[in-house]
Amino acid sequence: MRPTVTEIEVHDVRFPTSEELDGSDAMNPDPDYSAAYVVLRTDGTEETGGGPAEGHGFVFTIGRGNDVTAAAIRSLRPHLVGRPAPLTAADLGALYRELTHDSQLRWLGPEKGVMHMAAGAVVNAAWDLAARQAGKPLWRFLADMPPEDLVELVDFRYLTDALTPDEALEILRAAEPGRAERAALLVERGYPAYTTSPGWLGYSDEKMVKLAQEAVADGFRQIKLKVGADLDEDLRRLRLAREAVGPEVRIAVDANQRWDVAEALRWTRALAPYEPHWIEEPTSPDDVLGHAAIRSGQPVKVATGEHVANRVVFKQLLQAGAVDFVQIDAARVAGVNENLAILLLAAKFGVPVCPHAGGVGLCELVQHLAMFDFVAVSGSWEDRVIEYVDHLHEHFDDPAVVEGGRYRAPALPGSSARMHPGSIAAYRYPDGPQWQARTAARQEGTP
Amino acid sequence: MRPTVTEIEVHDVRFPTSEELDGSDAMNPDPDYSAAYVVLRTDGTEETGGGPAEGHGFVFTIGRGNDVTAAAIRSLRPHLVGRPAPLTAADLGALYRELTHDSQLRWLGPEKGVMHMAAGAVVNAAWDLAARQAGKPLWRFLADMPPEDLVELVDFRYLTDALTPDEALEILRAAEPGRAERAALLVERGYPAYTTSPGWLGYSDEKMVKLAQEAVADGFRQIKLKVGADLDEDLRRLRLAREAVGPEVRIAVDANQRWDVAEALRWTRALAPYEPHWIEEPTSPDDVLGHAAIRSGQPVKVATGEHVANRVVFKQLLQAGAVDFVQIDAARVAGVNENLAILLLAAKFGVPVCPHAGGVGLCELVQHLAMFDFVAVSGSWEDRVIEYVDHLHEHFDDPAVVEGGRYRAPALPGSSARMHPGSIAAYRYPDGPQWQARTAARQEGTP
Repeated sequence: MRPTVTEIEVHDVRFPTSEELDGSDAMNPDPDYSAAYVVLRTDGTEETGGGPAEGHGFVFTIGRGNDVTAAAIRSLRPHLVGRPAPLTAADLGALYRELTHDSQLRWLGPEKGVMHMAAGAVVNAAWDLAARQAGKPLWRFLADMPPEDLVELVDFRYLTDALTPDEALEILRAAEPGRAERAALLVERGYPAYTTSPGWLGYSDEKMVKLAQEAVADGFRQIKLKVGADLDEDLRRLRLAREAVGPEVRIAVDANQRWDVAEALRWTRALAPYEPHWIEEPTSPDDVLGHAAIRSGQPVKVATGEHVANRVVFKQLLQAGAVDFVQIDAARVAGVNENLAILLLAAKFGVPVCPHAGGVGLCELVQHLAMFDFVAVSGSWEDRVIEYVDHLHEHFDDPAVVEGGRYRAPALPGSSARMHPGSIAAYRYPDGPQWQARTAARQEGTP
Repeated sequence: MRPTVTEIEVHDVRFPTSEELDGSDAMNPDPDYSAAYVVLRTDGTEETGGGPAEGHGFVFTIGRGNDVTAAAIRSLRPHLVGRPAPLTAADLGALYRELTHDSQLRWLGPEKGVMHMAAGAVVNAAWDLAARQAGKPLWRFLADMPPEDLVELVDFRYLTDALTPDEALEILRAAEPGRAERAALLVERGYPAYTTSPGWLGYSDEKMVKLAQEAVADGFRQIKLKVGADLDEDLRRLRLAREAVGPEVRIAVDANQRWDVAEALRWTRALAPYEPHWIEEPTSPDDVLGHAAIRSGQPVKVATGEHVANRVVFKQLLQAGAVDFVQIDAARVAGVNENLAILLLAAKFGVPVCPHAGGVGLCELVQHLAMFDFVAVSGSWEDRVIEYVDHLHEHFDDPAVVEGGRYRAPALPGSSARMHPGSIAAYRYPDGPQWQARTAARQEGTP
């Protein structure tokens, strides 16, 4: 018998990462990596394992406002409680459409910001549940679906001037023959990764150089540096990094939306002699035309996407020829379904997808989408890399594992999103012991 | 002495408008017009009147999710409590920048959706307070500011490829000489309005025709019909409306984001023989390139803006030549400051601003921006009209008044956003008596 959703449980979980300047960049000087975390409870039993059947998902934030996002997730409760657990492609398509087209909630976006990210967390939790019940890791659960089912998952509204359902079906069918071989290859070799761990703005030159050398020794063929606060410092850091990693390793740079168009052109031209692999988020994620002007006005390739609000903006970035790399994020748009639309759009335009990750849980989650893309959509990992940051993985049941510069394909059922109950309890904000201790220390005046 | 902000008070206020199908359109079949309402309390006394010095603002929503928006406003409390009341242009510029650039909250947008609308409500409440303390209606408070002060209010980040601070200053200085004359003219004649009251999709033909005739008799020179659910019905309704109002009165049509690009082209070409004055929101508000394709591919002029998330998207709509009319909304972007940026962008590109209004409180609030635009920015009301819907004005202290098809210039101090305390108490959700009665009736099974 199909289980029924009995409750949604929502937790405000925050990690005090700002204390170490991990994650510091030109626009985000003090992030506390956080998750507005949701558990879909059901009255069923796990197909494998025998525990309760449940699904886990989250919105990633960087601290303040995590409570607002948690409230947004809670507001979706009436769509879920009492609903038969969504386990098939048809169910998961229906749930996604229902959450993003609620006739009143839609006003709060439409399809952007807090409400949209909340829908994404719930959609992803439903996928986690469905993949667990199917006994498959999410990437394989997706890659085993027939092209016709995958097309049904997508909301083509506002996309058909760039991608029709028939074109999507064609893309998926073209990738069908090699699925089994690519899945085997993926399990054998893992998926290429790059690391941002050396490059945070708050790190000293020494720390950056040491971490960059370690990254290369660990097998990474690409690293990334944060830029955009001071041009002279950026030039120095880029030179030091290039010396540290040698001529063969790619160095991407990331401005985190710091610039206007003219400033982006000036700055990127100055960095160009050091041959950065891409310039990431040179300006506002909403500025399709600005990205197009930046891409055409200087020699460095352009990447963006972690803050792109939805598939409609990605569509335009591709239509306008504004990006060389599409950086999907697992927890910004409305979950697996919307990311599938974005993977299909990227495939249509022949632009490689290089997912954004890091934060907390984003590596765990997004690896499934890139691996599915390799097996069943683009069919390629050429010029494709998943971001990796070596932070906070210890809080997850099935942590992302990177070895020799490659993500190991997850083997356990689900989306890898499940956080240890002990971590949730310890870092719940503001009542978990980790935060209570900090509040007490602050009140006593100790740092 | 300058007062200090002592508290922010937030109310979830909802009106059960869905019971009458008022406000029904192709995408929003059942809106309950709502306000996430904020009062900035201070320890000061009103300059005029002698009551407590306070500022009122709100996010407009259509029901569900109003609680999420209220939570977002509450999350801004640390930026406000203990702050000297922002009364000058410099203060109001600083508050706006602080709220929209909070280094952690920014992740929830950036500058879009729930968090951005919440910032807008607070910014607008601060403007209400400042205008009250200056003893002027908001439009005049703004129109009395020197161009240099107005430029300081704007965040030019991401705008400078289309509008620089110097260009903004030039626009404002060019409009300076005629300010007094235009203000006098505005007070004498009022500002042109159009009415959407006849055109909701849920209304019968008879009701629509009767309301259209009444609108013309009341002096309106433009009405608007909702379209997009069924082409044959739209053609019939447009024909009936044209017969009812005669050849001289403008009929705008509004698709509320219903279409993809190809569908918008097909549908709008079919409506074109009835000479609609504009097609509003033909597709996704995020789709700059889609609007450009629609504008260039059929003869009807294109209007959009009520759901456009921020100044960066407006900038692109203007850069791409995608719109003939810019429809600002007082409660979607981050308040007066961001709308000033949008007014300046529209002036730079020579595109008329025709504000979106209706809902609850939107007419009250946005009239000030259009009037300020007339007096001190564009200097013109040619081809400009403010939307008017005759709903829910009775809940406000200083309700919008339209006579002879024109908005009367508000004379009382403030932004006209203050709702009667009795209305807030009655319609508070879910605990106000109006909602308790409905809950009780529903539980008894009566409609």
